[in-house]
Amino acid sequence: MSSPLALGLIGAGRIGQVHASTIVTRVPGARLLAVADVNLDAARACAARFAIPKAVVDPLEVINDPAITAVMICSLTSTHATLIEAAARAGKHIFCEKPVALNIEDTDRAVAAADTAGVQLQIGFNRRFDANYARVRKAVTSGEIGKPYMLHIISRDPAPPPIEYVRGSGGLFADMTIHDFDMARFLTGSEAVEIYTQTDVNVDPAIGEAGDIDTALCLIRFANGIIATIDNCRKAVYGYDQRVEMFGSGGAISIGNNYPNSATLSTAESIHTDLPLNFFMHRYVEAYAAEIEEFAAAISAGKPVPVTGHDGRAAFALAMAAKQSMLEKRPVSLV
Amino acid sequence: MSSPLALGLIGAGRIGQVHASTIVTRVPGARLLAVADVNLDAARACAARFAIPKAVVDPLEVINDPAITAVMICSLTSTHATLIEAAARAGKHIFCEKPVALNIEDTDRAVAAADTAGVQLQIGFNRRFDANYARVRKAVTSGEIGKPYMLHIISRDPAPPPIEYVRGSGGLFADMTIHDFDMARFLTGSEAVEIYTQTDVNVDPAIGEAGDIDTALCLIRFANGIIATIDNCRKAVYGYDQRVEMFGSGGAISIGNNYPNSATLSTAESIHTDLPLNFFMHRYVEAYAAEIEEFAAAISAGKPVPVTGHDGRAAFALAMAAKQSMLEKRPVSLV
Amino acid sequence: MSSPLALGLIGAGRIGQVHASTIVTRVPGARLLAVADVNLDAARACAARFAIPKAVVDPLEVINDPAITAVMICSLTSTHATLIEAAARAGKHIFCEKPVALNIEDTDRAVAAADTAGVQLQIGFNRRFDANYARVRKAVTSGEIGKPYMLHIISRDPAPPPIEYVRGSGGLFADMTIHDFDMARFLTGSEAVEIYTQTDVNVDPAIGEAGDIDTALCLIRFANGIIATIDNCRKAVYGYDQRVEMFGSGGAISIGNNYPNSATLSTAESIHTDLPLNFFMHRYVEAYAAEIEEFAAAISAGKPVPVTGHDGRAAFALAMAAKQSMLEKRPVSLV
Amino acid sequence: MSSPLALGLIGAGRIGQVHASTIVTRVPGARLLAVADVNLDAARACAARFAIPKAVVDPLEVINDPAITAVMICSLTSTHATLIEAAARAGKHIFCEKPVALNIEDTDRAVAAADTAGVQLQIGFNRRFDANYARVRKAVTSGEIGKPYMLHIISRDPAPPPIEYVRGSGGLFADMTIHDFDMARFLTGSEAVEIYTQTDVNVDPAIGEAGDIDTALCLIRFANGIIATIDNCRKAVYGYDQRVEMFGSGGAISIGNNYPNSATLSTAESIHTDLPLNFFMHRYVEAYAAEIEEFAAAISAGKPVPVTGHDGRAAFALAMAAKQSMLEKRPVSLV
Repeated sequence: MSSPLALGLIGAGRIGQVHASTIVTRVPGARLLAVADVNLDAARACAARFAIPKAVVDPLEVINDPAITAVMICSLTSTHATLIEAAARAGKHIFCEKPVALNIEDTDRAVAAADTAGVQLQIGFNRRFDANYARVRKAVTSGEIGKPYMLHIISRDPAPPPIEYVRGSGGLFADMTIHDFDMARFLTGSEAVEIYTQTDVNVDPAIGEAGDIDTALCLIRFANGIIATIDNCRKAVYGYDQRVEMFGSGGAISIGNNYPNSATLSTAESIHTDLPLNFFMHRYVEAYAAEIEEFAAAISAGKPVPVTGHDGRAAFALAMAAKQSMLEKRPVSLV
Repeated sequence: MSSPLALGLIGAGRIGQVHASTIVTRVPGARLLAVADVNLDAARACAARFAIPKAVVDPLEVINDPAITAVMICSLTSTHATLIEAAARAGKHIFCEKPVALNIEDTDRAVAAADTAGVQLQIGFNRRFDANYARVRKAVTSGEIGKPYMLHIISRDPAPPPIEYVRGSGGLFADMTIHDFDMARFLTGSEAVEIYTQTDVNVDPAIGEAGDIDTALCLIRFANGIIATIDNCRKAVYGYDQRVEMFGSGGAISIGNNYPNSATLSTAESIHTDLPLNFFMHRYVEAYAAEIEEFAAAISAGKPVPVTGHDGRAAFALAMAAKQSMLEKRPVSLV
Repeated sequence: MSSPLALGLIGAGRIGQVHASTIVTRVPGARLLAVADVNLDAARACAARFAIPKAVVDPLEVINDPAITAVMICSLTSTHATLIEAAARAGKHIFCEKPVALNIEDTDRAVAAADTAGVQLQIGFNRRFDANYARVRKAVTSGEIGKPYMLHIISRDPAPPPIEYVRGSGGLFADMTIHDFDMARFLTGSEAVEIYTQTDVNVDPAIGEAGDIDTALCLIRFANGIIATIDNCRKAVYGYDQRVEMFGSGGAISIGNNYPNSATLSTAESIHTDLPLNFFMHRYVEAYAAEIEEFAAAISAGKPVPVTGHDGRAAFALAMAAKQSMLEKRPVSLV
Repeated sequence: MSSPLALGLIGAGRIGQVHASTIVTRVPGARLLAVADVNLDAARACAARFAIPKAVVDPLEVINDPAITAVMICSLTSTHATLIEAAARAGKHIFCEKPVALNIEDTDRAVAAADTAGVQLQIGFNRRFDANYARVRKAVTSGEIGKPYMLHIISRDPAPPPIEYVRGSGGLFADMTIHDFDMARFLTGSEAVEIYTQTDVNVDPAIGEAGDIDTALCLIRFANGIIATIDNCRKAVYGYDQRVEMFGSGGAISIGNNYPNSATLSTAESIHTDLPLNFFMHRYVEAYAAEIEEFAAAISAGKPVPVTGHDGRAAFALAMAAKQSMLEKRPVSLV
């Protein structure tokens, strides 16, 4: 039996703790050896909860720890690119939360650093690991729906983030649609060649005053011929709405939302169910665990990770093209 | 009690007989007094079946029959505009199958003729009278889903028509999407201001060789801000696929297909149902009856008909703009 | 081409008119030649509406009309057995609404009269012709669910009938469950060998004061081993609830209710649909037409009718046994 | 902040490890101090995996450990009653897997021991903690469905256990239906007053040769008037089938199965989904965790546990009465 995979955690916030929990409870072949957080108390609390022997402030103490084989970067977005480069220099494999950066230059530099160093870089597009989306992809690759013609993604949040967050988010396309751009690439197995978008400020005028939008419809053409739409809104009153439909020569597959229970109530007013799961960390709880399980399994086995820095780069490029389409009111080519 | 509404039928083919049956079985306040068909035997058979006293070849014998108050034009598309003009001149109210014509000039002239004559002209956009679509419209007008933001229409045929039909159809947008353009106008209660489209030939290369397409995604902006998509394909292997989703500030409404039964089978392979209703005259049997009921009721009561020549004109204009967008590969403005 | 099937109608009330409409609009090979009703005005109005040449008061004038081949008995239940006997004597085939009679002796005598005369007798168990129930039966006969083990029938009315009706109804088992007893026999293709029941008065104490019940659960064992339950209630606030589930060695089939539309609404409160079809004549509109189509087709072709007087007798016998089980608080054998 | 709840685990098999995992990952206020298993290696492996400081063979070393406040009995059924008595004598609170025993005398003695000692005894009826069933109970207690009239439980296994297991199981009612008896008590909030059953051997003749049945329908009357049915079968080819419907004066609530994903596939053959979750430990993974969370919370707070030894006793008594009904072919009173 081989020795355990030695991991280091950078960032002991919400998502960092989620990943630490996955390592402890679901990845018997891995051990967390160190955790870093700018807040030392947070690092220590995380270390205590998950029995991590070392808690520090400086992420480089984790990255450069010779006992550590791979690092999980769960710190602020603004630190991602720099930490990826540092980890690559140290020869460590990397799991990094999305996005790699908020501009294409930093993204490219970080991805290139991992490539040059020959380390693996997995980006946290967790939805690829969700059972519903994975089933759609399987329907495509297995031929169950024949040759795919059209794809529709609906991705609506239950409520907009605080306006301060919106201001620093890089805009709806880079902050929210980026998940859907990656999903469209994942499900089609192809690269976008053109994007056109219609957008609006419907939910809150303050979002418009911040220079952003809250409603968008993207129409994307993929290299393999698939025509895709992405429907985004920052607010759906009935909750987190995450659905997909793929249609092809042999049929169609569609996925619905996830619910807290399977109950249907019939009363004098209506036939109804409770609202779908409302919080993304509940909705995707299994996907967050599965992406880490697959990361650890790939690193341990010396196999490629399932979502790479190049995937992160491509989704970001689509966000930039969508923004250009919105500003120039025309279809934008990506080739 | 008033005397019955006196109707004349022009065209004793499939749809003409459907409308005749509606008059006989569901509109007690109306009587069919004459039927015309280029095939006299067909006219006579129709007359016998529905107890219509007069069967002729010449539609003008119906139109100019002084006993007749309104005519139902169910003949070939190429005759629609001319017959509308003749009926308008004769002061007769008109129900006419869609489309009014295959070019905008004939459409405009026919619609103007009815306007000038002060007669009512209803176009056979039967889907507006379907219980599912009507429920979506009611959700909008009642405020159940708040202010609408986005609309998605899926409209896929079970199989493409014969290639000879395709050649003379005026193209997918004028022949097939025209129903969906009308539906989008009906459901949004607004006029399109811009359309962009992505198209393909996926189903049959012969359709492409005939200069047409069989797959299309239209992205439409409406004057009231709603962003709409229309997904069309000439072939869905699982059958006639006719669905809509409307999303707004207060929620969403979606409609599914209609099925021959409500059974769900659970076997060792899957949980499954039978395929949806596959034939448009089965799927819309109630809508075909309801549009005639409402036409007769409006004429009898001297009230406006529910779908006018202007609706027919607007849907056709959208089809022309969609074609232009396809040919010029750019968004086309309709204002 | 053969001459049309000549029919007579006895009873011009609601259900009589439904059947007349079916003959006129959906059975081209049949003609209604006469209608009888105790109320001559009703007979005449019906004759006018459906172009029936003869309208009379005395049902024997219909039954004994030599031009008539078959009669449809849609008069009061108390007249059914006597009219069946008269029609049998006259050599006429018979369609009769259920039940044949409110006691077993009259039932037996009427059924025997038809048998002796060699005329066909179809009982109006319309639900057998409903697409949902027919699909369940097909799943059994086709082997889709293997060897059936258990059957569950849910049959709840939207509201109890007037208390005067309850008093003369013969009780819940004979009046309401009789449809479900027939359905259980139809779906299992077998005869009941034992029945046990638990009952209650939940909906209205006046029903109990009238000596009846409004809630019942019947547990039935069939000769072929199937165990069946029937759940009845006189009131379901959400509407007419008519469902079935059959489970066997190869799987299960279940049917749901029918709805006025396929819409699903998602709001801040719930995901909901409208209530199911509430009125039995709307819910079973197609079944009422189909049973008459099949009756006419069988008579015209000289083939056996699909539901016989013996079926009517067997369902009634189950109702009597259920009542006995309720009164004697024990399982009752039917063999 | 109070000191952690000190727990001991008896039985390091499958379910014992599930509960240990719950304590470690989801109950921050509890600690496992010792684990016992007849197989010392199993005890040690469990201790290593979950960081339990003490691993022993003798359960009394856990029960009598003065540092331990409560024990979780996950050993063989035959040991349950004796261990409950030992724990009660030691003044320890107890979580015990169902059933307490395979006869009523041992059950009564164990329950009485806990009562006498004043310790809490929770029985592992995990399904009460499942979100679906909990939602049904909430619909009853909240009044959403008014006064309940009828309850239907469907509980079918994907495949029968090995015939050796069947022989020692105590029979279908004690081994399988016992979960449903408890569920019926939980959902109705009442005690059974009469039970009648129809049974069969459908799945495997060997089950009949072993003196057991594999198919059963129980009809139960509850003290508060609710009429309930329980449908059991040892084999449903489509998987683990666990559903409930409760009907009352204000409406109805029904729950469906849980699925591995929410995908619907439309192909040329059918509209279908994947099969439901097939393995009870996947289906009830959350319920197994929730029952332990609630046990720990109740003990920590000094509040009553949510399912008691008396619940275990009542479900077992129903199993005995069902068996009597089957053998004597008559309704059996429980009061």
